[in-house]
Amino acid sequence: MTAVKDSAVKESAVKESALRDLYLDWSNLMATKELDTRLFRSIFDEWHQPTVEPEGVTYKEEVVGGVPGIWALPIGADADKVVVFTHGGGFAVGSASSHRKLAGHLAKAAGWTAFVADYRRAPEHPHPAQVEDGVSVVRALLDRGIKPEHIATAGDSAGGNLAVAIPLALRENGLPLPGHVIAFSPWLDMENKLESLETNDLTDALISTPLLEGMIAGVLGDSVSPTAPLANPLYADFKGYPPLYITAGSVESLVDNAKHLAEKAKAAGVDVTLNIAEGQQHVYPFLAGRDPEVDAELVTIGKWLNA
Amino acid sequence: MTAVKDSAVKESAVKESALRDLYLDWSNLMATKELDTRLFRSIFDEWHQPTVEPEGVTYKEEVVGGVPGIWALPIGADADKVVVFTHGGGFAVGSASSHRKLAGHLAKAAGWTAFVADYRRAPEHPHPAQVEDGVSVVRALLDRGIKPEHIATAGDSAGGNLAVAIPLALRENGLPLPGHVIAFSPWLDMENKLESLETNDLTDALISTPLLEGMIAGVLGDSVSPTAPLANPLYADFKGYPPLYITAGSVESLVDNAKHLAEKAKAAGVDVTLNIAEGQQHVYPFLAGRDPEVDAELVTIGKWLNA
Repeated sequence: MTAVKDSAVKESAVKESALRDLYLDWSNLMATKELDTRLFRSIFDEWHQPTVEPEGVTYKEEVVGGVPGIWALPIGADADKVVVFTHGGGFAVGSASSHRKLAGHLAKAAGWTAFVADYRRAPEHPHPAQVEDGVSVVRALLDRGIKPEHIATAGDSAGGNLAVAIPLALRENGLPLPGHVIAFSPWLDMENKLESLETNDLTDALISTPLLEGMIAGVLGDSVSPTAPLANPLYADFKGYPPLYITAGSVESLVDNAKHLAEKAKAAGVDVTLNIAEGQQHVYPFLAGRDPEVDAELVTIGKWLNA
Repeated sequence: MTAVKDSAVKESAVKESALRDLYLDWSNLMATKELDTRLFRSIFDEWHQPTVEPEGVTYKEEVVGGVPGIWALPIGADADKVVVFTHGGGFAVGSASSHRKLAGHLAKAAGWTAFVADYRRAPEHPHPAQVEDGVSVVRALLDRGIKPEHIATAGDSAGGNLAVAIPLALRENGLPLPGHVIAFSPWLDMENKLESLETNDLTDALISTPLLEGMIAGVLGDSVSPTAPLANPLYADFKGYPPLYITAGSVESLVDNAKHLAEKAKAAGVDVTLNIAEGQQHVYPFLAGRDPEVDAELVTIGKWLNA
């Protein structure tokens, strides 16, 4: 069982950060307050706080393929290259607003634009609404004449799951696949069976098994199997899948998701880059603009996108 | 006494809007949940939601005069003209993040830049910390060579109080006054004695006397008089005060604050523009980008700033 997160629990391997502080604060709220989905959404919209405003980026709201969202438009970016960003938050919380700055940093590092989708959230909209919305966005971009190789799907946590699943769904729909896929701390294991969920429980400042159980119930309900490939891409066929960049923090509970995804995709012949960042927490790229290690990695990802 | 806000209460004079919907939702949360300052801060950071992202505006975080904040930098804006924006939230909640987009719209309409100050908040930092931080920002801008006539203070609600009080404090400190002052739905009456607090109670979707009482206790405590001119500028001397633009919604509980401020400043010979917007709620400029009436008014304010 999962203990309440405690700021006293800190091993030497754990890196202190504004992100970790925020997670500890949230964990304290979860342990002490009665939070419903409404309040969870309020709290998780604070996810943007550890991210410094990226300079030289403008924003524009638009509905793309029926899905509302926010464009991050770095000055001088190539308007014909688009990162489709699906935000994290257990399919239920988080928003384009909470991830606007993160997507802005990523887009700026690549010289691309990014569209952060406000896809339909659980529990009001169970799986596969989220994947369908991602497909709708990509389809609309293709209809606008954006080349598939100039589209990347990207996302974090549950949004990392979506970033990985959307290309699989595009393939099922007979549509071309994006050129690249980026997954920050993807959460794929809807069975809660990977080992790090237990072994990293005390070093991860946010994720707990009960939290994940609640989110799985919200998005899958009783009708979707936790091993359905579009809900849990660890069960998907990755043959012919685009180049995949995966990151995770070494001390986070979901790190094994990243490792298993990398292994599975590599076994299918996919060009996989996996970076496990020492001591970092869940979705550590939220430290963009604050942690030079993160900024350096975003530059690397930008080059990888353009290679 | 104040009744719980009820979405059923809607007179024909009340304009429906995304802002009103958000306030009704907050009022429901306040009536049904145990909210402490921490959760109030989370919820009030949603204040940005009714505001559409202003296009063509970039952002930059900086500490100015010891005060952190976010610059809103419209492309092509005059970097030598600065709106110093103090956000609302009862001196206790709200942030540069919650008001970034609103300040961006205002700055863009004027062709100026805006600095949204994350001033120290109550109750951790009681009055006059908020006013002092505003003075520090203006002093730093003057030290950078910005001309006083190219500085405007602006703010909403409690931040409108600060926008009005900061020039008074600058005068006390022997510093030059800004060229213009803008107050959106300013909240000045720390005695809760103005009539509209009762007469508009059922049409205002957010403000209630108990809410204001809590915020007054937090910022003034027992040691500051509710009639101290820098805490309640309705008691200030406005002789020699800069041109003042005041807006409020006709159905909001705080509308009399705007009217009394206008009367008092006019009586002292100040050039005052007062706009009471029919049917609108507290700080209706949050509807920028969504309500054409608001966008038109921001254009008017932009021209007024540059006249």
